[in-house]
Amino acid sequence: MPVFRCPDNPIITPADVRPSSPGFEVVGVFNAGVARHGDQVILLLRVAERPICDDPGVAVAPVYDLTTRQIELLRFDRGDSKLDLSDPRIITTADGTFLTSISHLRVARSTDGLNFQIDPEPALAAVAAYETFGIEDPRITPVDGVYYITYVAVSRHGVATALASTRDFEAFDRHGIVFCPENKDVVLLPDCINGFWYALHRPASPFSARNEIWIARSPDLLCWGGHRPLLGLRRGLWDGARIGAGAVPFEIEQGWVEVYHGADANGRYCLGAVLLDSTHPWRVLARTDEPILAPQAPYETSGFFGNVVFTCGLLVEQARLRVYYGAADTSVCYAEIPLADVVGGLGF
Amino acid sequence: MPVFRCPDNPIITPADVRPSSPGFEVVGVFNAGVARHGDQVILLLRVAERPICDDPGVAVAPVYDLTTRQIELLRFDRGDSKLDLSDPRIITTADGTFLTSISHLRVARSTDGLNFQIDPEPALAAVAAYETFGIEDPRITPVDGVYYITYVAVSRHGVATALASTRDFEAFDRHGIVFCPENKDVVLLPDCINGFWYALHRPASPFSARNEIWIARSPDLLCWGGHRPLLGLRRGLWDGARIGAGAVPFEIEQGWVEVYHGADANGRYCLGAVLLDSTHPWRVLARTDEPILAPQAPYETSGFFGNVVFTCGLLVEQARLRVYYGAADTSVCYAEIPLADVVGGLGF
Repeated sequence: MPVFRCPDNPIITPADVRPSSPGFEVVGVFNAGVARHGDQVILLLRVAERPICDDPGVAVAPVYDLTTRQIELLRFDRGDSKLDLSDPRIITTADGTFLTSISHLRVARSTDGLNFQIDPEPALAAVAAYETFGIEDPRITPVDGVYYITYVAVSRHGVATALASTRDFEAFDRHGIVFCPENKDVVLLPDCINGFWYALHRPASPFSARNEIWIARSPDLLCWGGHRPLLGLRRGLWDGARIGAGAVPFEIEQGWVEVYHGADANGRYCLGAVLLDSTHPWRVLARTDEPILAPQAPYETSGFFGNVVFTCGLLVEQARLRVYYGAADTSVCYAEIPLADVVGGLGF
Repeated sequence: MPVFRCPDNPIITPADVRPSSPGFEVVGVFNAGVARHGDQVILLLRVAERPICDDPGVAVAPVYDLTTRQIELLRFDRGDSKLDLSDPRIITTADGTFLTSISHLRVARSTDGLNFQIDPEPALAAVAAYETFGIEDPRITPVDGVYYITYVAVSRHGVATALASTRDFEAFDRHGIVFCPENKDVVLLPDCINGFWYALHRPASPFSARNEIWIARSPDLLCWGGHRPLLGLRRGLWDGARIGAGAVPFEIEQGWVEVYHGADANGRYCLGAVLLDSTHPWRVLARTDEPILAPQAPYETSGFFGNVVFTCGLLVEQARLRVYYGAADTSVCYAEIPLADVVGGLGF
């Protein structure tokens, strides 16, 4: 599939983002939600920070403290044989799992969609008991002038998905947890269909260990039910090990197109597309055999967590998918894919 | 706490229940939902069956087949070193987890609450894609003449909770999945409070590995949101390893009483009580330090899965808790606990 990667990729890197507090460094800026707001393209960036730590014998987990209302540091001895530090993102202890970084959401604005001004302060950061390990991976759905933002809320209670909303990307309302643990990769369809809103979501189950996409419906965007398995894994293919919804679905003549991510057994994350029925979105009509975007460029194959392209948002403009995507859990990149090629990949 | 155990315990055993099809044997009848219906006490029994298998070298998983509309048998070689058969309830393979038995729900009726007539046929059995490994652990909440039944639906998609309803325990309506995987131990408060229904639920998260009780709210009993962690584990105590809601909550002067189950690090399951605020049920007011019922009798300490007392339903009548409970994942037992003692255990 012919993909145009921006020659300036990555378009946003950790060096472009001011840390939210002294003593922290930005280690990743990636997985951004995207929306058009007036004549601006808005990115809601996931900014991952970690405390600057000069002691190589110590592993540090930053955790928001509800009492002090600050990020406090939990310190672990790297020599402790009970610690599992094999995944650079997490610290597993006998007492639970912690993250090595804490994420917040930051607004960036652009008129051309390529050159962004990044706010100096977070737009949304951990404040609630269910967010103490940070908030991640926003998706933005515009509905009648309100932008609804689903985001992943991580804490010792698990990985859940919460909802916030804004009209201007200045003031935000929080609406609490909409999908309880363990659930992430939640995207909202932008249209109400026969009285119901629909969400794609990705529950994780210790029993089944399948990371598949489900669909749910809601009368009000806050309460969700009618859960059904929607899209399964394809063993041996690029989306054989885990999948999750990516960007907010957009409508074409044939139905809803969802650009999702899939990982293979080696943990390589690609993007593909699936077509859902216009009025019965729990019906899968088609799915691309091949990825529409795969890690290839050095900034995609190497980084904090390499071999990953992962999108939380795109714009469909001038017959192109303008895809904003996280590369290697490190930076924000931009690519354009002709809509006709995606539709062709779906068999039309 | 003075507990009166029925001298005829267990009041229902596997030998009392006719298998649903030839070639199967009933291995457990336990974890029954309970309701008063007219002058009858109704139990909705969980009946666990497994195929009679004479070959000791074979492990068999019964799975409902959506095409043949029958339970088909998956056979595994017990000599296969990749199989994990350490838990008698499950078969873990490289291709996923299966159950060694398949459960359905069966109605039993009584006028005295102790001697039950058991229907010869299942009331509710696996029919849907999300139920192919069986349906389990019903809880019954009466609302304006309708009995709402939450039950656990198990399949390769995970362990979820679905909703059904009936007016007469003859005809049942199914309402699909209300809590997506992994979630079980869902009980509905029987009253609508300021326009919302409330449910206690127990999500399970690969990330946090904490099995704690959450609360959610709903405008219609079908769609759920506003999820909050409600009740945590107490490390080192009888409810230090995992907890889940048990019976449907009942109201006393001081608030809602929920009889829940807790397991310690050794997998011993007891019952305890927690008190929730009447109009703000997400506020925990009190919790019993000690269990109100613990495995003690031989039928509780030994069986298919020993050292377990587990309730899905009780009646509060004549100042007593009339508790129906599963013993050792094998049989249905009955005990009475003075309400005053439970209230006393909560500090009142």
